[in-house]
Amino acid sequence: MSTPSSPSAVTYDKDGAALLVIDPYNDFISEGGKVWGRLKAVAEANGCVTHMSQVLDAARKAGLRIVYALHRRYRPGDYETWKHIAPIQRAAWLRRTFEYGTWGGEIRSEFAPQPGEIVALEHWGSSGFANTDLDLQLKRHGIHQLIVIGLIAHTCVEATVRFAVELGYEVTVVKDATASYSEDEMHAALDVNLPNYASAIVTARQLVDSLSSVEVSGASSQSGP
Amino acid sequence: MSTPSSPSAVTYDKDGAALLVIDPYNDFISEGGKVWGRLKAVAEANGCVTHMSQVLDAARKAGLRIVYALHRRYRPGDYETWKHIAPIQRAAWLRRTFEYGTWGGEIRSEFAPQPGEIVALEHWGSSGFANTDLDLQLKRHGIHQLIVIGLIAHTCVEATVRFAVELGYEVTVVKDATASYSEDEMHAALDVNLPNYASAIVTARQLVDSLSSVEVSGASSQSGP
Amino acid sequence: MSTPSSPSAVTYDKDGAALLVIDPYNDFISEGGKVWGRLKAVAEANGCVTHMSQVLDAARKAGLRIVYALHRRYRPGDYETWKHIAPIQRAAWLRRTFEYGTWGGEIRSEFAPQPGEIVALEHWGSSGFANTDLDLQLKRHGIHQLIVIGLIAHTCVEATVRFAVELGYEVTVVKDATASYSEDEMHAALDVNLPNYASAIVTARQLVDSLSSVEVSGASSQSGP
Amino acid sequence: MSTPSSPSAVTYDKDGAALLVIDPYNDFISEGGKVWGRLKAVAEANGCVTHMSQVLDAARKAGLRIVYALHRRYRPGDYETWKHIAPIQRAAWLRRTFEYGTWGGEIRSEFAPQPGEIVALEHWGSSGFANTDLDLQLKRHGIHQLIVIGLIAHTCVEATVRFAVELGYEVTVVKDATASYSEDEMHAALDVNLPNYASAIVTARQLVDSLSSVEVSGASSQSGP
Repeated sequence: MSTPSSPSAVTYDKDGAALLVIDPYNDFISEGGKVWGRLKAVAEANGCVTHMSQVLDAARKAGLRIVYALHRRYRPGDYETWKHIAPIQRAAWLRRTFEYGTWGGEIRSEFAPQPGEIVALEHWGSSGFANTDLDLQLKRHGIHQLIVIGLIAHTCVEATVRFAVELGYEVTVVKDATASYSEDEMHAALDVNLPNYASAIVTARQLVDSLSSVEVSGASSQSGP
Repeated sequence: MSTPSSPSAVTYDKDGAALLVIDPYNDFISEGGKVWGRLKAVAEANGCVTHMSQVLDAARKAGLRIVYALHRRYRPGDYETWKHIAPIQRAAWLRRTFEYGTWGGEIRSEFAPQPGEIVALEHWGSSGFANTDLDLQLKRHGIHQLIVIGLIAHTCVEATVRFAVELGYEVTVVKDATASYSEDEMHAALDVNLPNYASAIVTARQLVDSLSSVEVSGASSQSGP
Repeated sequence: MSTPSSPSAVTYDKDGAALLVIDPYNDFISEGGKVWGRLKAVAEANGCVTHMSQVLDAARKAGLRIVYALHRRYRPGDYETWKHIAPIQRAAWLRRTFEYGTWGGEIRSEFAPQPGEIVALEHWGSSGFANTDLDLQLKRHGIHQLIVIGLIAHTCVEATVRFAVELGYEVTVVKDATASYSEDEMHAALDVNLPNYASAIVTARQLVDSLSSVEVSGASSQSGP
Repeated sequence: MSTPSSPSAVTYDKDGAALLVIDPYNDFISEGGKVWGRLKAVAEANGCVTHMSQVLDAARKAGLRIVYALHRRYRPGDYETWKHIAPIQRAAWLRRTFEYGTWGGEIRSEFAPQPGEIVALEHWGSSGFANTDLDLQLKRHGIHQLIVIGLIAHTCVEATVRFAVELGYEVTVVKDATASYSEDEMHAALDVNLPNYASAIVTARQLVDSLSSVEVSGASSQSGP
């Protein structure tokens, strides 16, 4: 770009864009999940889970690479030997969120990764990039552009977007395919902070429309296992 | 720690704690700076600059390592060849914020680094850690604990704290030694997001009191140049 | 340190030092392993496996933190969608080295991690730090000093030591607790390259002697699960 | 790629490939430089400096992005406060290699960066990626493929290639556009270690031939400042 004054609309190309799905665990977005009770009000008000499905569907149809960024599933012994711990990690430890081997630590069934989709190593904090192979996997697949959906807006989603931008990716956030515990937190993430980092913040409808113009025929050229 | 249920008060030891001063540029916190007009209302209301000075002073007296995380000072040619750019970087480009070789791109005089203090490489985004030597310098100096002051609360300060925690540091934020453009942004950073990551969010007064109990005599054992 | 001229002998303190065990997989160091045939001559000549055991034993007795850096265990689908791949990864793909779910992809029994020991996320290349949580885990446990044993000297060991130093750790390499396919490769790693990065390169005997002076009584203060 | 068995020849495309020039300082490659005396025999035997010029020239003509990875230029106070230091850094400290403000710390004139070329932040160790913005700059310019020339083969060149591959880049090394202190070190880097990581190791002649087929007309589409 030769001047700073003209932000143009974000467009997606099948080869360089990926959908990044953050923490679609039962504990977050399924009835009975450990955290669902606190997310439910916001998530139902904006149709979060339905929109996540619609976007995932559209991205697969458009032949985009699908990538999962997943939080560490709790295992006993995870934190006992740490010398210090952040409050958000202490909370995960207390609640045993996403406990390994339990239903809560499984991906909600309609978001299960399909063959050829990428599941990054689990992250310990909020950013899907920190201490994982997410950046490597994106590079090895030629991805420079991310469309982000999932949970929770002001923690993992915001952190992952902030890291993505620092690492050099162009990011779109789908604002009604995410949720927080309160509208105050949604506002902090979506209205206050993310507009500084995301090149576009759109609705699921807008995103699905954008993807419908991505060349579909090319999807079959992906060499899956 | 053996159980998750007992967060104890944060204490600082002279050898492992550092004060991290973020972006104390004239453009941010001096009358006449390019961004000061937008920060002034919040910064004057909470005594930001005075508190930054008090904390810096107390940290030096306590013998803490002082570290500076500074944003890229704008130079012509910085962004012209980038293929995509984040909104916050586009804004910095438009405004030529912290322009290299100008007064606005200089550190406000009372915050000038002293001999033996560390100035990390300039960062391109909001996190003082991303694409810089900040983590290396902290490790080489044996630092595992950070006290954070400076600008801007919801962008660089929040980003640097988020990264610090992902990288394994224990962080304290001094809430009246930072500022944003609006109380809404201060709320997003200090009340909504940072409590998840910072082990303590304190006032300058509280921090200065904590530091007064750090062993002062040890300060002279630092081997400065 | 105030001058560059006086490298002193490396000493270890129980709280800040860890033993890093690299890739003690059956495929590498057990009779019948996929790669053992190529490593055997060098490994038997220098007593590699016996020395690894002796060092691990001594480190546990001295109360040092034990940390494992493990290569990605091969799973079908790992590389099929990558756009490009390094030669060493192509070789791992061809051989299905450390295949997940097979004996070759298991840690040789006498090197099995014990409760309270740390197993970092698996790495895709040669460095135990790249794209894993190794740096985070070391910071969360207060480690700044590494003693390195394991395989293979000129690939994973050298890479991990190079990364450790770039990240700010002080490193000791145990030269007869590692092996390569040939003496030529051992020479490249141990005589040519690693002396630039490791603060000490010692024998297992020397290391065990050093550790015997580390305060043993403190070992019990580690809070394991 | 769908199978591991068929490494194809590396080809370069103008948009995704960059030439990475490592440490072309006077101290390394100019008569009178602090380190030149030790590099001279190998560098003159393989025509290192001439080949570096030829490759740089060809890359510019082909319209490839040119990127510089430069070592920290020594400044007083750099290391005095470090708690520990690697041997290679201790040596740089002793010799004051690439001293800031001196001729030795300047880039040899015929390798001076031209407008629109990228100069990454200075690195403290051997890898041009560690603790710098090199990865960010490459991503922001759409680069996924690196051609590497410069100094020193077994330290900075090897380290930068190892890091590049861990980060997901495809790398070509030009073996007669680099040098070490001895043939033993050249062998360790070029014959023993780098074949595991570099997708191609070629002569300057071979590289120049490859670049001559890169679409030249596109060069003018680069938007320089």
